Amino acid sequence: MRIDILTLFPEMCERVLSESVIGRARAAGLMDLRCHNIRDYTRDKHNRVDDAPYGGGMGMIMQAQPIYDCFMRVWRDAGPPAAERTAGPPEETPPAGDKPHLIYLSPKGKTLTQRRAAQLASYDRLVLLCGHYEGVDQRVLDELVDEEISIGDYVLTGGELPALVLTDAICRMLPGVLSSEACYTEESHFSGLLEYPHYTRPAEWHGRQTPEILLSGHHANIERWRREQALRVTLEKRPELLEGAELDQKDRAYLDSLSGADEDPEGRPEVL
Amino acid sequence: MRIDILTLFPEMCERVLSESVIGRARAAGLMDLRCHNIRDYTRDKHNRVDDAPYGGGMGMIMQAQPIYDCFMRVWRDAGPPAAERTAGPPEETPPAGDKPHLIYLSPKGKTLTQRRAAQLASYDRLVLLCGHYEGVDQRVLDELVDEEISIGDYVLTGGELPALVLTDAICRMLPGVLSSEACYTEESHFSGLLEYPHYTRPAEWHGRQTPEILLSGHHANIERWRREQALRVTLEKRPELLEGAELDQKDRAYLDSLSGADEDPEGRPEVL
Repeated sequence: MRIDILTLFPEMCERVLSESVIGRARAAGLMDLRCHNIRDYTRDKHNRVDDAPYGGGMGMIMQAQPIYDCFMRVWRDAGPPAAERTAGPPEETPPAGDKPHLIYLSPKGKTLTQRRAAQLASYDRLVLLCGHYEGVDQRVLDELVDEEISIGDYVLTGGELPALVLTDAICRMLPGVLSSEACYTEESHFSGLLEYPHYTRPAEWHGRQTPEILLSGHHANIERWRREQALRVTLEKRPELLEGAELDQKDRAYLDSLSGADEDPEGRPEVL
Repeated sequence: MRIDILTLFPEMCERVLSESVIGRARAAGLMDLRCHNIRDYTRDKHNRVDDAPYGGGMGMIMQAQPIYDCFMRVWRDAGPPAAERTAGPPEETPPAGDKPHLIYLSPKGKTLTQRRAAQLASYDRLVLLCGHYEGVDQRVLDELVDEEISIGDYVLTGGELPALVLTDAICRMLPGVLSSEACYTEESHFSGLLEYPHYTRPAEWHGRQTPEILLSGHHANIERWRREQALRVTLEKRPELLEGAELDQKDRAYLDSLSGADEDPEGRPEVL
């Protein structure tokens, strides 16, 4: 899979994508991630890529042309990574071949879910456009963008962190990136439940014990305990997730027993 | 405001926070952001900070002790930034003074909203804990964490990007960070509506015109047009946001006119 990120801050994006799990997977050739500087495609002699908004108002708007030309180059060119390229002459005509799927990271987009990330992981190629300043000229969005994605209902200074979040969410699902498929299928939002609590050495820490069952070596009981903990945590913190989760009869009985405990007349005192 | 980030990847976090809007605001002394390497606090001779999960299973779990000691140092120490420090001897006892509010970035947390980011922007001090590998020993979370925050319903390889997202969302609201308060109060999720479309030079691009009204110079009409566009975009893309938005009579009349258009018997053909 190849993902191209169009941004005004390619070095920062590159740095994040060179680290840890994703960095190791790139080094191993498991995916091809490239960061492109939109500013390399300006035709302004002062290298500007933005201008004041028509109609007045605060802030600056990113102009259509540098974004368009940057995307055209990325579409045309499966060539060397951005760091090794010099900006070429402007290329205005769409090249032959299928247009890569272009995602604009924007608060107006559909909210990212694990399900959508998994679908996007099956694409051969994605291009991510990061806005900055106050926004992007609507016309280049209308002309090029296939999908708008928001990572959540909050405002950020630019689209770079959202693009990196999306890239991370997608890339960790590519074959070989995590050491085993079990690593991600067990995790929160994949089975529809939040994750059970984890414990590692030492068995006692600051007077707090590891739950005995985890030291018992009885695998079936451990699995059942973990499943029940996941159900309990989900019920406590995100009960609405239970509606979409795959639950069997045992799960439902356990959840009922938890709800029953709330009705206990001698129930625990309420704590802040 | 001071934010300390506890992470296994402090240089990467530092790089992101040195860029663009946040980087300039830090350089101007508008906030104090510090990144701390949890690994500096391990007592393991091989510098390990993780171990296999009790009860078996895939992946590795971050151990309690290095996280605890790192937090204690950060609590105790308003001293030099992480980069200038060398790891000192372990410090086990909580220092005097109020414990800083510790947020663990986790899929189990409450989903981040603009409202919560605005509340957090009023804190004097925050500490953000980034998990990695499969998770963190539950006991150190039970002992220290005040709040768990998730940035959305998707799984990432670590807590670093969520911590950076949260830091960005908070810091851009601090006084002086953006050039004018208008910059953020007008934006998506602040007025409760998605943002209206933007246009900048040239007036015509690729045969696409800037809406005439934006070139008219009639400010009241422009404001009204922008408001209506914001209403239209929100109705199209995130209609549920309209329930929480502050709408006046004109807004409601405009929304009614849009819904009415859908009932036009000669309505536009449905497009994919």
